[in-house]
Amino acid sequence: MKDYIIHDEWNIIEEGFVPELNRVSESIFSLGNGRMGQRANFEEQYSGDSLQGNYIAGVYYPDKTRVGWWKNGYPEYFAKVLNASNWIGINIWIDGIALDLAKAKVSDFKRVLNMKEGYLERSFTATLENGNQVEVKSTRFCSIVDDQTGAIEYSIKAKNFSAPIKIEPFIDFDVVNEDSNYDEKFWNALDQSASNGRAWVKASTKKTNFVVCSAMSYSIIHQGKELTLNSELVEKEKYASNIIESVIKEGETLTVYKYAANISSQNHDENKLVEVAEDEISKISTKGFANLKKEQAEAWKSKWTEADIVIKGDVAAQQGIRFNIFQLYQTYTGEDPRLNIGPKGFTGEKYGGSTYWDTEAYCLPFYMSTADSHVARNLLVYRYNHLQKAIENAEKLGFTNGAALYPMVTMNGEECHNEWEITFEEIHRNGAIAYAIYDYARYTGDQAYLAEYGLEVLIGISRFWAQRVNWSEAKQKYVMLGVTGPNEYENNVNNNWYTNYIASWTMKYTLDALDYVKVNHSSDYDRVLNKVNFDLDSETGKWNDVIDKMYFPYDEEKEVYLQQDGFLDKVLMPVDELDGEDRPINQNWSWDRILRSCFIKQADVLQGLYFFEDDFSIDEIKRNFEFYEPMTVHESSLSPCVHSILASKLGMEEKAYEMYLRTARLDLDDYNNDTEDGCHTTSMAGTWMAVIKGFGGMVIKDGKLHLNPFLPSKWEGYSFKINFRDIVLKVDITKDNVEITNESENDLSLILKGEDTLISGKGKKELAT
Amino acid sequence: MKDYIIHDEWNIIEEGFVPELNRVSESIFSLGNGRMGQRANFEEQYSGDSLQGNYIAGVYYPDKTRVGWWKNGYPEYFAKVLNASNWIGINIWIDGIALDLAKAKVSDFKRVLNMKEGYLERSFTATLENGNQVEVKSTRFCSIVDDQTGAIEYSIKAKNFSAPIKIEPFIDFDVVNEDSNYDEKFWNALDQSASNGRAWVKASTKKTNFVVCSAMSYSIIHQGKELTLNSELVEKEKYASNIIESVIKEGETLTVYKYAANISSQNHDENKLVEVAEDEISKISTKGFANLKKEQAEAWKSKWTEADIVIKGDVAAQQGIRFNIFQLYQTYTGEDPRLNIGPKGFTGEKYGGSTYWDTEAYCLPFYMSTADSHVARNLLVYRYNHLQKAIENAEKLGFTNGAALYPMVTMNGEECHNEWEITFEEIHRNGAIAYAIYDYARYTGDQAYLAEYGLEVLIGISRFWAQRVNWSEAKQKYVMLGVTGPNEYENNVNNNWYTNYIASWTMKYTLDALDYVKVNHSSDYDRVLNKVNFDLDSETGKWNDVIDKMYFPYDEEKEVYLQQDGFLDKVLMPVDELDGEDRPINQNWSWDRILRSCFIKQADVLQGLYFFEDDFSIDEIKRNFEFYEPMTVHESSLSPCVHSILASKLGMEEKAYEMYLRTARLDLDDYNNDTEDGCHTTSMAGTWMAVIKGFGGMVIKDGKLHLNPFLPSKWEGYSFKINFRDIVLKVDITKDNVEITNESENDLSLILKGEDTLISGKGKKELAT
Repeated sequence: MKDYIIHDEWNIIEEGFVPELNRVSESIFSLGNGRMGQRANFEEQYSGDSLQGNYIAGVYYPDKTRVGWWKNGYPEYFAKVLNASNWIGINIWIDGIALDLAKAKVSDFKRVLNMKEGYLERSFTATLENGNQVEVKSTRFCSIVDDQTGAIEYSIKAKNFSAPIKIEPFIDFDVVNEDSNYDEKFWNALDQSASNGRAWVKASTKKTNFVVCSAMSYSIIHQGKELTLNSELVEKEKYASNIIESVIKEGETLTVYKYAANISSQNHDENKLVEVAEDEISKISTKGFANLKKEQAEAWKSKWTEADIVIKGDVAAQQGIRFNIFQLYQTYTGEDPRLNIGPKGFTGEKYGGSTYWDTEAYCLPFYMSTADSHVARNLLVYRYNHLQKAIENAEKLGFTNGAALYPMVTMNGEECHNEWEITFEEIHRNGAIAYAIYDYARYTGDQAYLAEYGLEVLIGISRFWAQRVNWSEAKQKYVMLGVTGPNEYENNVNNNWYTNYIASWTMKYTLDALDYVKVNHSSDYDRVLNKVNFDLDSETGKWNDVIDKMYFPYDEEKEVYLQQDGFLDKVLMPVDELDGEDRPINQNWSWDRILRSCFIKQADVLQGLYFFEDDFSIDEIKRNFEFYEPMTVHESSLSPCVHSILASKLGMEEKAYEMYLRTARLDLDDYNNDTEDGCHTTSMAGTWMAVIKGFGGMVIKDGKLHLNPFLPSKWEGYSFKINFRDIVLKVDITKDNVEITNESENDLSLILKGEDTLISGKGKKELAT
Repeated sequence: MKDYIIHDEWNIIEEGFVPELNRVSESIFSLGNGRMGQRANFEEQYSGDSLQGNYIAGVYYPDKTRVGWWKNGYPEYFAKVLNASNWIGINIWIDGIALDLAKAKVSDFKRVLNMKEGYLERSFTATLENGNQVEVKSTRFCSIVDDQTGAIEYSIKAKNFSAPIKIEPFIDFDVVNEDSNYDEKFWNALDQSASNGRAWVKASTKKTNFVVCSAMSYSIIHQGKELTLNSELVEKEKYASNIIESVIKEGETLTVYKYAANISSQNHDENKLVEVAEDEISKISTKGFANLKKEQAEAWKSKWTEADIVIKGDVAAQQGIRFNIFQLYQTYTGEDPRLNIGPKGFTGEKYGGSTYWDTEAYCLPFYMSTADSHVARNLLVYRYNHLQKAIENAEKLGFTNGAALYPMVTMNGEECHNEWEITFEEIHRNGAIAYAIYDYARYTGDQAYLAEYGLEVLIGISRFWAQRVNWSEAKQKYVMLGVTGPNEYENNVNNNWYTNYIASWTMKYTLDALDYVKVNHSSDYDRVLNKVNFDLDSETGKWNDVIDKMYFPYDEEKEVYLQQDGFLDKVLMPVDELDGEDRPINQNWSWDRILRSCFIKQADVLQGLYFFEDDFSIDEIKRNFEFYEPMTVHESSLSPCVHSILASKLGMEEKAYEMYLRTARLDLDDYNNDTEDGCHTTSMAGTWMAVIKGFGGMVIKDGKLHLNPFLPSKWEGYSFKINFRDIVLKVDITKDNVEITNESENDLSLILKGEDTLISGKGKKELAT
């Protein structure tokens, strides 16, 4: 845990340059716009420790992982988030000496991530080896208005000298991934060009053959006047730049405006990439930096209007929650159904891939409540578009007849993770994809989605479950052998309660969906059943049989659901009794010891009680919570939020707040000592859920919104907005009362603290707390 | 399955050149002498498909396998058997055209592995592109008399031409491993030298830094006269040769005698390797090829005198069993306790490492019965010497107080396999190492071994078991969670019956050993207990408690031991009911499907019933055999032999013979379609066991040899020898009688077909069958 980020309501602030923290800050101060993003690397060269990272959504590399032992059905690769061109680079030499913060004496260093307006600012004074002192200020952003572009303002002031200055804005595709298994570079050079004031480089990825053209233009202002010097043109393989030589006098300021575009063959004709890039560059450079920055601020303002959470009386909490919301919107905007939400967003290489069940279980509720419903719909359509690949994935494992197993990790629908105990066995993810359809339809009321897309996916998933169980003669029940539950500290267990439950639930929901679509969308019903070659009687008959006779491990004495068969053979002990030096166990214990212990990585039985809370009594939820939570080490960033929500529901305010704290500033305070690898982007949605679903008590039942808010005692008040079926509600909780404002024209009937409540359009409702 | 090896009692014969079979033949016709070995590659260059392989015992490379996901406690590397210098190479050019069987027209091709005398012969006629025809015959061997050397006789006859001939005998260290994870070469060049008639190359392995000098000398005889031409000397990095130019006339023969030595820093001062190599070369070239070949034949004769099995009335079976015995003695001679028996011997790269539990469970009985007892003792001392590493290995996993976990695969005592489900969990191997001590002491009567070495190892292993179990409150028993049994088609199961049984047995045997050593070797007792810091009361108290309260899964209804908890939840079906196209399942099914199926790779519960047969009634063994064997796919080469032995014991002759057939010609007939990777060397000892322990009914009980032989109905008779406590017995079984000959001076009292029988020194006993 670290504590160097300065608390502020709207800004993330670092003061002073500590090279040892540079990687952590590079993660925290990351920028993105859903289409591209980057770590907070420096513009000028830096020879110190750094993880260089510029990423373009959807551009990945399938790095081979086949070493040593291999088994049938393993994917051939692990998809890596690709470090793409460095488009921010501006090398500076003063009197022949490179400006390099690893070599200069640095003072007044400050980094500010302005979340309100969506830009990164950095300023410092550097004293070079020869004593020359410069004051530098840079401002940059990835535009969310024109998401293929970015812009930089980089100004240098000569404090105590007059000397020649050399400036080299560049595009560099000769980059590496730190996690390359074979120390390979992943980009092939295609072409490059440098002309006066402009440069571009075109490269393609190995194997996947994505083609990207990164282009730049720049202007240099010296004492208010644009320099029109000739520049030296540099072209090398995967590299293009201009080198401009000038002279800077004591007290003078020289400012570089650099405009860049990253144009990918995913979105444009491969042969027109250079043309498009040049057009984009012309467009944004014509607008100019100040106008672009203003547009950016306005665009972010409208996002905040929809999604902001205000916390009163706790600046750290306020900063934390805004940081989470900001990073989520930097990562995914929902405009492109081919894209998804990588666990680290655009902030690092780790975990590869882009899509985990995190999307369905954690991110979907955030986007449903804070954005237009097409955003959440696009997240679902993403999986619909991968259905055929999910069927192929299941076929590789031996399943038949259209059974679909969605991948654990994917870029394009193919499985790209390859630990057998995860890839083959952590199949509960399939259930989360079905649950997301239910959750979406429940929240938005968009039942038509079932007819258009949802039913087909549900049938594929239910077919998988029906084949994945087997009849146990010994138990006279259907059992599910060889699975890994959400608690990945158990592998290859039998009858994981959560997996059995969500499997059975999926089949029930699919039967409901069949009925609904048959009655309400009969032509879709015929179309889908025909398309998937559905044998109604035998398939639904089998599903009903499995639903009736599914085995759920349960202990009669303790009256708890068992995480899996044999769980009670373990030595059960609370996490509290562990030595501090054993924690986190995933850094201190062998895998063998972890597997055999009772300790739980993240909600497992409790994930089921969270998803399906209406199926269980409060007493049941409480008994299970009190049995499992004390054995939970929360070593997944996805763990504390679910526990926080359940604790809120159970009235365990202290536990709810403790769990909330573990997620809210996870990255800002580098809680798990791993922020240097990147931020925990998907878990940020969990933090949002802990506020809205936990403290705010938001649930949807029978088509109705329920709110049951309470105020954590550490706070003076908080407020949030939710977008529920085109109605924007503002919820404001203080020590004294709850105020709900209906910002829309239409009336809304909801259940507020258990009471049927009508809030008319543009109306307001107050309730004492 | 293939059927191209010509049946012969003493020779392995291939006729006709089929390039597609070349890799298979390279494996089958391999040579070795326990210290070095090689695949049957060609001397002259060959541009066709081939797996080049020359191996030096104990010389390995730790190839890194760290890609993607990693877990604490994983070994950093997987040890690879290293392809070492090519010392057989003799390039030939005739009239400027290289002799290369991939480019010439080949006729009369024949390979013969003479097992009786221990050499490989190859002859062929090749018609080169220009019509020149040569007749070639090569003979070579790895000397078992001087195990650092080898010799080749290579003669070429000009059939239909007279032309210039160029001959290049060489040493080449610029070799690769096909299984290199990162396409690296594993040898660093050190030095090389070529002089007239001689050459050597010295190289060292990366990381492990073994230094090896390979040297050669040669002479060339032309029409009976030694050529004394000057040669061109070639020296390149990792390569040295002589090129000799001469002229060969129609009908003439030119013969190259090449002598080679491979001298390793494992056995010699690193700075004297060249000197030693040159001495060796001088020594053997002075002796000359004919004398060396004669020595070789004599040495093999004495091995066969001890170890031969004669089968009458079945040439294929005769060839098969001799091939197995021959390969075992080519792989391991027992002279160096640092060496062990790799699963592929010197016949290929696959499986890496040198030592698996195969050694203790399969190879030890072979060497105990066919060689002097110091050979078997050396196999045990090998593990004793690794005890400290086994303790470190256990510490990495979190065990304490001298608990020892022997590695699954090792070269030097360190674990060098890295699948968690094997490395961390397939811990029954630890039991096999304890069992081998028991087996050795039981067979040889050398109880003193316990005092000197054995007890210390047993204490380390028992300490491991005592920590590895845990108390189950639910079962009120000790359980063992998260293991992989011998049946590797199950991973991470709870309470594998075999593992629980051998763990409990180890603790019992260790308690017995403590008592024995205390009474009979009291100073050793004090020395060992002091050395390992033994807390007698608390440690033996714990062991007794675990022995008393160990949980053994059992089904009351079926009256069988359960392979593991939950085994009966599977869909149970016999292998017979599988489609042919599903077999072998490890090539046709996903790992997921294999894990969830009931199908068993190799003896698991039955391995325990084989090891501890005296603990169980014949009925019990039969019930379990009849339950498990039908579900066993025998996809480990180690599987059929154990089943054959048990079936013999149960009087199921047909099953016993069927299982025997699956091992006896496994490689000769390429039964599993994988002989191209190398031979299944360790399972060859299992084949031997199937004859001696199965058909011969050999067991040791209470210090007495029992024999209970029967004659498989397909055979006319068979005979074998066993060395039991310095007495050599010849056992001869025909249709009519069993004849036992005591070839030693001392009397032997044994149990023959259940009857106490005394056979006096040099005496004989006959019994009607």
